[in-house]
Amino acid sequence: MAVLTPPPDPESDPRVRAVFDDIRATRGSDFINNIWHYLAADPALLERTWREIKEVMATPSSLDPLTKELIYLAVSVANNCAYCVHSHTAAARARGLTDEQHAEFLQIVALATKTNALSNALQLPVDDVFRAEKAPGEG
Amino acid sequence: MAVLTPPPDPESDPRVRAVFDDIRATRGSDFINNIWHYLAADPALLERTWREIKEVMATPSSLDPLTKELIYLAVSVANNCAYCVHSHTAAARARGLTDEQHAEFLQIVALATKTNALSNALQLPVDDVFRAEKAPGEG
Amino acid sequence: MAVLTPPPDPESDPRVRAVFDDIRATRGSDFINNIWHYLAADPALLERTWREIKEVMATPSSLDPLTKELIYLAVSVANNCAYCVHSHTAAARARGLTDEQHAEFLQIVALATKTNALSNALQLPVDDVFRAEKAPGEG
Amino acid sequence: MAVLTPPPDPESDPRVRAVFDDIRATRGSDFINNIWHYLAADPALLERTWREIKEVMATPSSLDPLTKELIYLAVSVANNCAYCVHSHTAAARARGLTDEQHAEFLQIVALATKTNALSNALQLPVDDVFRAEKAPGEG
Amino acid sequence: MAVLTPPPDPESDPRVRAVFDDIRATRGSDFINNIWHYLAADPALLERTWREIKEVMATPSSLDPLTKELIYLAVSVANNCAYCVHSHTAAARARGLTDEQHAEFLQIVALATKTNALSNALQLPVDDVFRAEKAPGEG
Amino acid sequence: MAVLTPPPDPESDPRVRAVFDDIRATRGSDFINNIWHYLAADPALLERTWREIKEVMATPSSLDPLTKELIYLAVSVANNCAYCVHSHTAAARARGLTDEQHAEFLQIVALATKTNALSNALQLPVDDVFRAEKAPGEG
Repeated sequence: MAVLTPPPDPESDPRVRAVFDDIRATRGSDFINNIWHYLAADPALLERTWREIKEVMATPSSLDPLTKELIYLAVSVANNCAYCVHSHTAAARARGLTDEQHAEFLQIVALATKTNALSNALQLPVDDVFRAEKAPGEG
Repeated sequence: MAVLTPPPDPESDPRVRAVFDDIRATRGSDFINNIWHYLAADPALLERTWREIKEVMATPSSLDPLTKELIYLAVSVANNCAYCVHSHTAAARARGLTDEQHAEFLQIVALATKTNALSNALQLPVDDVFRAEKAPGEG
Repeated sequence: MAVLTPPPDPESDPRVRAVFDDIRATRGSDFINNIWHYLAADPALLERTWREIKEVMATPSSLDPLTKELIYLAVSVANNCAYCVHSHTAAARARGLTDEQHAEFLQIVALATKTNALSNALQLPVDDVFRAEKAPGEG
Repeated sequence: MAVLTPPPDPESDPRVRAVFDDIRATRGSDFINNIWHYLAADPALLERTWREIKEVMATPSSLDPLTKELIYLAVSVANNCAYCVHSHTAAARARGLTDEQHAEFLQIVALATKTNALSNALQLPVDDVFRAEKAPGEG
Repeated sequence: MAVLTPPPDPESDPRVRAVFDDIRATRGSDFINNIWHYLAADPALLERTWREIKEVMATPSSLDPLTKELIYLAVSVANNCAYCVHSHTAAARARGLTDEQHAEFLQIVALATKTNALSNALQLPVDDVFRAEKAPGEG
Repeated sequence: MAVLTPPPDPESDPRVRAVFDDIRATRGSDFINNIWHYLAADPALLERTWREIKEVMATPSSLDPLTKELIYLAVSVANNCAYCVHSHTAAARARGLTDEQHAEFLQIVALATKTNALSNALQLPVDDVFRAEKAPGEG
């Protein structure tokens, strides 16, 4: 179904092996989902993508893990990425998303998309109070 | 800048007045931002939109208010709605968003958008474990 | 294929039953399509969504029913919503869309999308004559 | 504001002159809006774009002129093309769009965008009845 | 899977036959891919679409054929058109795209999408040096 | 105009200073465009974004520099990122893009967007010959 066939034995490449090992260790699971199998065709892209996901999503930070997944999922819905909507709904479930929270998430996404459309259809001017005050070099 | 001129004296319409009063009471502020001035051209749409925003965003629920704003903002960024990005960044700030959290939000949005593009470019097949098991009527 | 399994017996919930009954009565058909089965997982969202569709789409108004469906379909194509393109093409057919009109619809959607891309690629300035004259509070 | 400066004297090129003359004659107006000034930088693209718009939008057909403009506008809103939303709202007004119809148009666009988001967030399976029965070569 | 059944014997229409013959001659292959079968339902749209593709993509010009396919593919990925991503990845391969170039293409698309999201999330002001200097009529 | 005020003296932070120095050295120019001023609010995001742009765009590779910029620009147009369309049109000019090539680029982007819309509107099934043969684990 994809546009390329993923490498049949990706872990024979030591760079791929190192990333897959780190995915398994970070997640505490042997399962490697499809995106990593396909990115393995380009070890540099695989490494950069995993490093960024690990730094941004798997490191304790100022936003809690479920909130981070919901932001990720909201973007994926708005961009209509089928693979990402499936994988990040699953990831949010794994982070404790309840049915009630999922229902609420859907309500917010539906509402935001709707007011986005209204704003764009009306070409609303931005209220002055919402603008940052200074551009670079304005001291 | 918009595609229509908003009603010059919107609160002379009692339906608009009631919505504007409720916005002020709910927010504890006299400020009515632009989207409500423009939607006032259609009291039915104004009422429905405000009712939905109040129910979804201003009612205590299973997700905390800041998380809800960040989901709203993530959708608005992905849909590139200038008005909404401005107004909901301000709303998130009002809900306590720190500079550090905003920076992290940007990192997640950037990362999600990037993996969305990779998934779409590769047309990744969805892993079976991410699919719900039953369709309607399958018992 | 979806991200959740819809409720196996949705009409055991009286709020869902009431909405499904109203869908059947409004449409004069026993068929309930998938979106309603899945939204039944959240009766509040189901009720709000159906109420809005009924008010906007199934109530006689200043635009004729076929035109309304074509606007709905045009948005769904531009947002690339597979489910919506299928269901609203069917709905437009049910409202009398002919093969010739469908072909013309496709021509317009293709053309609009193309000039949208050109305008965005050039970052065209909006002609002054296309702008509304007054912002809120300008009297 | 645009990414290029349009030709200062576009009608000195006879191919541009011919298109501009035809725009004026077709519309019964001397006004040439910005997109044509910018496309004049590439007479082949100017000719092809105008020919297509004239054939699709300005030729009597199975859909009435206002419906055609509303389809065009719906696509432009969903694609968030500022120039196009402004120019085609104006064009729809010129074709007789009333305030009431514009309000209704906004309601439909808002609703469609919202159900698009819900469908994508749920990754709804398409009902069998909405699918065309045969692919090419299936006899 | 599509929203309509394509004509079962498209080449019985001489206009369709002429386009299909030209596709085969231009490509040096008997294979006619699905989009042409479906567009055959509207000979005018079929002719216009093929004529434009032939003029733009199959005519020697100032950009080389592979670069042209990669621009086409980049747009198709960003618009998340499954059919187009598949068909134009294949077309780029046929124009000589190597695995290494495809990997690099994916890196650029991922990066561009990411900085697009950051720019939109921040609502970055355009630097003055990036703007064209004169609008139409400014002499 | 942005949603935040960039740091007034960004280079007082040594991490920012190091990135800005590298931008100047890599480009051979003292000009630092706006996106870097705004990303300077988050040195980690600034570093990661610049490192990725430098690796992907400024390193000799299997695609020539102009082709890479045109892919970047095509994505930016399709995502309608105003800042990115301006900055990457300028970058492509700096890499030698001629007026003729720019005009051709616009033609391709317009055409691709149009066939994307047609494919989505018809929900075209992907031809079997365009699919990769094997999924992960199929040996």
